[in-house]
Amino acid sequence: MTAKSMEQLVALAKRRGFIFQSNEIYGGLQGVYDYGPLGVELKNNLKSIWWSSMIYERDDIEGLDASILTHSDVLRYSGHEETFTDPLIDCRSCKYRCRADQLVDGKCPNCGSDDLTEPRPFNLMFKTSVGPIAGDDNFVYLRPETAQQIFTNFKNILDSSSRSLPFGIAQVGKAFRNEITPRNFIFRVREFEQMELEYFVHPAKDQDYFNEWVQTRLKWWIDIGISEQNLELYEVPENDLSHYSKSTTDIMYKFPHGTEELEGIANRTDFDLGSHTKNQKDYSLSATVLSNDKSNSKLAINDPESKEWVIPYVIEPSAGVDRGVLALLNEAYTEERLENDDTRIVLKFNPRLAPIKVAVIPLKKNNSEIVKLAHKIKDSIQSLRIGRIVVENTGNIGKSYRKHDEIGTPICITVDFDSLENEDVTIRDRDTMEQIRQPISKLSEFVKHQIK
Amino acid sequence: MTAKSMEQLVALAKRRGFIFQSNEIYGGLQGVYDYGPLGVELKNNLKSIWWSSMIYERDDIEGLDASILTHSDVLRYSGHEETFTDPLIDCRSCKYRCRADQLVDGKCPNCGSDDLTEPRPFNLMFKTSVGPIAGDDNFVYLRPETAQQIFTNFKNILDSSSRSLPFGIAQVGKAFRNEITPRNFIFRVREFEQMELEYFVHPAKDQDYFNEWVQTRLKWWIDIGISEQNLELYEVPENDLSHYSKSTTDIMYKFPHGTEELEGIANRTDFDLGSHTKNQKDYSLSATVLSNDKSNSKLAINDPESKEWVIPYVIEPSAGVDRGVLALLNEAYTEERLENDDTRIVLKFNPRLAPIKVAVIPLKKNNSEIVKLAHKIKDSIQSLRIGRIVVENTGNIGKSYRKHDEIGTPICITVDFDSLENEDVTIRDRDTMEQIRQPISKLSEFVKHQIK
Repeated sequence: MTAKSMEQLVALAKRRGFIFQSNEIYGGLQGVYDYGPLGVELKNNLKSIWWSSMIYERDDIEGLDASILTHSDVLRYSGHEETFTDPLIDCRSCKYRCRADQLVDGKCPNCGSDDLTEPRPFNLMFKTSVGPIAGDDNFVYLRPETAQQIFTNFKNILDSSSRSLPFGIAQVGKAFRNEITPRNFIFRVREFEQMELEYFVHPAKDQDYFNEWVQTRLKWWIDIGISEQNLELYEVPENDLSHYSKSTTDIMYKFPHGTEELEGIANRTDFDLGSHTKNQKDYSLSATVLSNDKSNSKLAINDPESKEWVIPYVIEPSAGVDRGVLALLNEAYTEERLENDDTRIVLKFNPRLAPIKVAVIPLKKNNSEIVKLAHKIKDSIQSLRIGRIVVENTGNIGKSYRKHDEIGTPICITVDFDSLENEDVTIRDRDTMEQIRQPISKLSEFVKHQIK
Repeated sequence: MTAKSMEQLVALAKRRGFIFQSNEIYGGLQGVYDYGPLGVELKNNLKSIWWSSMIYERDDIEGLDASILTHSDVLRYSGHEETFTDPLIDCRSCKYRCRADQLVDGKCPNCGSDDLTEPRPFNLMFKTSVGPIAGDDNFVYLRPETAQQIFTNFKNILDSSSRSLPFGIAQVGKAFRNEITPRNFIFRVREFEQMELEYFVHPAKDQDYFNEWVQTRLKWWIDIGISEQNLELYEVPENDLSHYSKSTTDIMYKFPHGTEELEGIANRTDFDLGSHTKNQKDYSLSATVLSNDKSNSKLAINDPESKEWVIPYVIEPSAGVDRGVLALLNEAYTEERLENDDTRIVLKFNPRLAPIKVAVIPLKKNNSEIVKLAHKIKDSIQSLRIGRIVVENTGNIGKSYRKHDEIGTPICITVDFDSLENEDVTIRDRDTMEQIRQPISKLSEFVKHQIK
């Protein structure tokens, strides 16, 4: 399966209401997208499965939802002010700006001139002024990753949850990066969402947990419907590692535009908690950190065995929500040649991810008894709380089936004249297109079984 | 019920991990808060009940998740650049700045001087620069309300969903306002979350739908656990109405700091779609709008009866998520005198809102068989997908009960030695503190019944 090209996905996403260019009626905002009626359900389903697998199905992880606005000290001591940059080049001929790696044979990609400035660092963080006095003292950043606010809340969560090592803090939310040249649809954007876990471990056990998390996360993506052959692990070479990382493995996915990172798992050592802690000299930190006289907190944990205060190491599985959505769309996209030589497009989502779980279709648009029964069936399935159920009342069964194939609805239920007499309905399966007749009384059980 | 003071709520929220001051380890960011392990569950439950009641349980509303970064044209034509201001006053003596309505008897609330500037308009929107060239042409706003991106997506959603009037678009998400003086905990903050519905109706039927939505929304708050006697409706007088509004009714709640707005329902007329549409002269707009030569879209709908293009009126129920959380915390907060003269604090949440649904408590912390059975029970209840279930393994039953009373867990299940023999457990009810013995085989049914 998978789409042949990004264009197919972009077109389907817009036509069916998954994803729109943001601010489109005013010419659009580059690298910023809106999730429409189906996209928001798909994205919410993805986030909720992640949340459930991290927090509900385990016993060692707490959740958090911290602010986007971030104190500049947080991003100074995290190293972002200094290092979160891309090399920017100006073309002296046409004034075009781009990242150094986007030059074409050392020439401007816009006008072809080689009269270019040397690359200089361009910080990717968005700034804004807070409070009624604009100025150098009153700016904050929009968080460039959700991770940092997990570290700043380490003590708050430790104090209120009485955790001991190992334990994790998980967060889902927006982050912002002022990409010089956003591209590839929702892959590289300026406003995006992350699902990040910071898993705190005893310093001596870091690499074991790191390896475990790489496997756990790889398996998770396969479980929700990404084919194994489109995924690969990439061990980031030592000289390409971020300043905080001891080792990083990326889970790479074959996107339509190329094989790129879907999620990264990093061993961040004691860099983060060490960076944000007061009295750093009290600990034998392995990481090189900026000397910190601003933090008012000890981000350490008392080791019950040695009775000493330890700054934990951190293993971070960090996944992109939008990249996940793109991978899932690509993975689900299928074009099938039908017997009558027509082509049908089907999104073969895992049912838990499907934006709409069930479409109930009245055979006749204007037959009030049939329509009423359809709504009754919808309400009854809705009460199972498995996601969105709709009544699709266009009066055209074939067209309704095509639409729900194209948006990935696993089950269509058609209500017809016989339904009124015999209390049964036709159930159509999205993938096989097979239709069976089922009594209405058994629908809830049937649907529950199919969607789980 | 309800708390005696805001201080009680702030203290409980911090102690138990509901809500923390954001960026606290660097001195905090005024008017910005983080939701901890319990707060994020409570907030997510609130948002998900809203989403369900708006989209899943009805048939006339679509969802959206649009960007926070907003093109300046959107907020120019919406009127926000011009009118979204508070009157700001400077004290010439101490340089303190505040809102005009915060002067104390015409004197500076900081130093008591009456040497003050005249009030001048201060725009509450946050700005940031996008792209590698900072400057006047490249700024965007952080959305001050989620509503505007619903209007800019009107055509996208209409085209992809084939809706006819009346229909709505619902959105949940962050919004940002640079409040001059944020205050009252999470009531008036700079970063907050909204649950907004824009309900599009035929111009002639606006006031009927307006009245209907006021009642629907009032009932909703009562249904999720706000006592009717702490709610009141406030009809905003004509001279206090926003520039876009024909009528507004606020749902007011008795917060610990006073009776203030929890949700506002506004009849926004054709102001919004009219403001953002091209060729405004083609329509007989009732609202006064800024002439718009930037929009590339017709934000109108074809009336199937008259075959004419109509710009719908909009009814907007707009609720604050954080204000909702505050009201729910306040409402649930109960101090009870026990028989032994101790006091217990209980959060009497509606079970659907409770951050943790069930705590499974092993009687003995180190008895591996009891602990194993507790985890087995947890996993089995977890699979019902009704929210977070925990194993509370402190070895102190009394302390565990107190903790789960204080965080509002409706059901505690204690696993003891008898459980191993007789396959039954003790179930304790949060509100009545009554304990009953139940077979393990019937737990799922029991819990499902209690939580629904």
